[in-house]
Amino acid sequence: MPLTAKEIQAIIREGVPMAEDIDFRVDEVSAERAVARVPFSSRLVRPGGTLSGPTMMALADAAMYAVILAARGRVEMAVTSNLNINFIQKPQPVDLVAEAILLKLGKRLAFCEVRLTSEGSPDLVAHVTGSYSIPPQTE
Amino acid sequence: MPLTAKEIQAIIREGVPMAEDIDFRVDEVSAERAVARVPFSSRLVRPGGTLSGPTMMALADAAMYAVILAARGRVEMAVTSNLNINFIQKPQPVDLVAEAILLKLGKRLAFCEVRLTSEGSPDLVAHVTGSYSIPPQTE
Amino acid sequence: MPLTAKEIQAIIREGVPMAEDIDFRVDEVSAERAVARVPFSSRLVRPGGTLSGPTMMALADAAMYAVILAARGRVEMAVTSNLNINFIQKPQPVDLVAEAILLKLGKRLAFCEVRLTSEGSPDLVAHVTGSYSIPPQTE
Amino acid sequence: MPLTAKEIQAIIREGVPMAEDIDFRVDEVSAERAVARVPFSSRLVRPGGTLSGPTMMALADAAMYAVILAARGRVEMAVTSNLNINFIQKPQPVDLVAEAILLKLGKRLAFCEVRLTSEGSPDLVAHVTGSYSIPPQTE
Repeated sequence: MPLTAKEIQAIIREGVPMAEDIDFRVDEVSAERAVARVPFSSRLVRPGGTLSGPTMMALADAAMYAVILAARGRVEMAVTSNLNINFIQKPQPVDLVAEAILLKLGKRLAFCEVRLTSEGSPDLVAHVTGSYSIPPQTE
Repeated sequence: MPLTAKEIQAIIREGVPMAEDIDFRVDEVSAERAVARVPFSSRLVRPGGTLSGPTMMALADAAMYAVILAARGRVEMAVTSNLNINFIQKPQPVDLVAEAILLKLGKRLAFCEVRLTSEGSPDLVAHVTGSYSIPPQTE
Repeated sequence: MPLTAKEIQAIIREGVPMAEDIDFRVDEVSAERAVARVPFSSRLVRPGGTLSGPTMMALADAAMYAVILAARGRVEMAVTSNLNINFIQKPQPVDLVAEAILLKLGKRLAFCEVRLTSEGSPDLVAHVTGSYSIPPQTE
Repeated sequence: MPLTAKEIQAIIREGVPMAEDIDFRVDEVSAERAVARVPFSSRLVRPGGTLSGPTMMALADAAMYAVILAARGRVEMAVTSNLNINFIQKPQPVDLVAEAILLKLGKRLAFCEVRLTSEGSPDLVAHVTGSYSIPPQTE
C-alpha cells in the first residue's frame, strides 16, 4: 500500500531535522508527483522580505524525497546525489509551494524536477533538478 | 576597511535565519577565500548519523556569501542565482568545514566554489559551485 | 512577426558552427516551446553505440537558444550563462529529440528546461536546465 | 603502466567524434590532473568572435574523461552522469585550455572539476563540475 501524504510528511520530519525547522508540509502525493509547502513565517525571512535560499533548497530537497517515498515506499537511506537550483525571482510573502516531478526512477538513481512558486501565483520562484541515490533493496 | 570574520558571521546570522539554526561560524576570511563551519550537533543529524543535505547546502551558501562580503564589503542584498552541489560521501560525526573560493567577482555576478570536508579529514564530503547576483552599488 | 522554425534553424546553424556539425534541425517553435533534433548519424556515435554527451549538450544548448529566439526575436548575442545536464539513460540509435521549454523570460536572464528523448520513446535520455544572458535591447 | 597524454588523446578522439571535430589535444596528465586544449580555429567561432558554448562543454567533458583515464586506466565505457557549467567571460581568440582536477575517484562515480581559461591568461572563462559513472571492473 503506498504511503499517504501524512505518512511521508512524518517520515521526512522525523528524519531531516531541517524539515522540522521550516515546518515542512506535504499536501498531496502520487507515484509521479508530490506537492509540498513551507508555510510563510516571518522567522524564515531575510532582510528585504525574501525567504532565504537555504529554505528553498531544503523545501526542494524534501519535496524530491517525498515523491521518491511515494513511488518507492519507505527508503529511509536514500540520499541526495546532485542538486542544482536556479533562483528566478523573489518569492512573495506567502507560503512557498513545491511541485516535485519524478523524471525517472531507476534502480540506483532517481531523477526529479521541482518547481517552486509562491502560493497563488503561477510564476516560478526557483527551478530545481536533482538526483537521489537509491540504496539496494534488502528484502 | 575589510570586514572581519566575526563581523561577517554576525551579518550572515542576522540576515539568514537558517544560518542561526545551524550555528554557522566563520573561521577566517580574505578577499579570495573564506573558511566556515557548522559545529557538529546531534540535532542536525538524520537517520544513519549523516548530517542532512540541507545543512550542507545552507553551510555552502553562507560560506559563499561570506567570501563575497569579505571581497566586496557589506552587500546585504546579494542573492544566490545558481547553486549546484554534488554530494560525494557521508560526512563524519564531527564539525563540517566549508572552504569557499571566489572564482570571479564581476560587476553583476560573483562565482564561487565551495569544498565541504569533515574536520580533520582532507576527503571531500560535497563540492559546490554557485553564482551570486550582486546589486548595483548605490553609493 | 515571430521567427519561423526554418529561420531560427538558419540563424543558429550560421552562428554556432557545432550546430552545423551535428546537423541541428528545428521542428517547431512557439513563444514558450521549441522542438529540435539531431538526425541519427553513425558519425556522432561513440563506442557502444551511444550518441556522445557533447552532442546531447550541443543539441540542448541550441534548443534553448531556439525557444529564446522564438520568444524574443533575433538576439544574436545571447550567451549561455549556466547549463546543467543529467544523463539519464543511453539514447537509442535513432534521432535525438529536444523539447525546450521557456521557464522564464526576464530582462537580463532567460531560464529554460530541455527534455531529450529518443525519437518514438517517451523515456528521458537526458534532462537539462539552463540560463541565457540576454543583452540589453538596442532599439 | 599508466596511459600517456598521447595515448589518452588517441582513445578519446577515436571514441568521441566531437573531440575530433574540435581538434582536442591532451597536453599532460597525472593521476589527479589533466591539461587539455582546443587550438584556436576560426571554424569554431560564433558571431562576436566567441568560441561557442558547445565547444567549451565538449572540451570540458573530454578533459574530465582524460583525467579519469589517467587515474583508472582504459575505461572506455565510462559515461558522463552530470555536468554543470558556468560561463564566466568571453574567451580570447586564442587556444582554450582546460585543467581538469579529479576530486574523487570512487568505485561507481568519479567527480571532477574543470577550469577553462584562454591560453596565456589566468582568468576563468568557464568553470565546470561533473560526475562520471564508472562501469564495474570486469577483470
